Amino acid sequence: MTTDNTIAGATKLNFSKLNGLVPAVLQHAETKEVLMVGFMDGEAWEQTLQTGLVTLFRRTLGRVQVKGEEDGKFVYVQRIVVDCDDDTVLLEVVPEAPVCHYGYESCFIKEILLKQR
Amino acid sequence: MTTDNTIAGATKLNFSKLNGLVPAVLQHAETKEVLMVGFMDGEAWEQTLQTGLVTLFRRTLGRVQVKGEEDGKFVYVQRIVVDCDDDTVLLEVVPEAPVCHYGYESCFIKEILLKQR
Repeated sequence: MTTDNTIAGATKLNFSKLNGLVPAVLQHAETKEVLMVGFMDGEAWEQTLQTGLVTLFRRTLGRVQVKGEEDGKFVYVQRIVVDCDDDTVLLEVVPEAPVCHYGYESCFIKEILLKQR
Repeated sequence: MTTDNTIAGATKLNFSKLNGLVPAVLQHAETKEVLMVGFMDGEAWEQTLQTGLVTLFRRTLGRVQVKGEEDGKFVYVQRIVVDCDDDTVLLEVVPEAPVCHYGYESCFIKEILLKQR
């Protein structure tokens, strides 16, 4: 549900809760599959808004990186929705290639078998 | 896509990247809507596995809390999938009431209007 349409920039993200980062959930715009969770700092957020390409702060690299930088297979943003307290971003995306570096469509690959209830 | 079925406990989450926490994405099991992103510490994770009720580490409270503790409207876990590097959890859930404390089905309520490309 979306109740409030906001121009880019009107919603200020709260980067303070997570040492300058906000989680960014990538959901496939068509299949609705959750593909991965990354993080954005202010630079990654602005760059994503400007380019329409998913751009993340990569904690392992310690820097901002366009998703697909290495192989030119980018992830296109179709829709962005910010949560109620401005500390998380949901991006509906269309990727040019599987987002998981293991070659899977989604990074979520390990199902935990739950006890029957 | 799920390639690896794992009994609870066989997958050890990596809590080290985020000061003892992992992000937990709540996705509605039926509508596939992304409802919210919370965080889990080890205790919240174990409690979720044991009870089948979404249990989060609430940063604002500084403690673990069963989602719905206040009003008895719980969020039931149907499926859990851990990501490739064991630092994020995806929970497919069925909530008894809207998860957002503003009364919305999803916390993601502020759409960012993107420039036409």
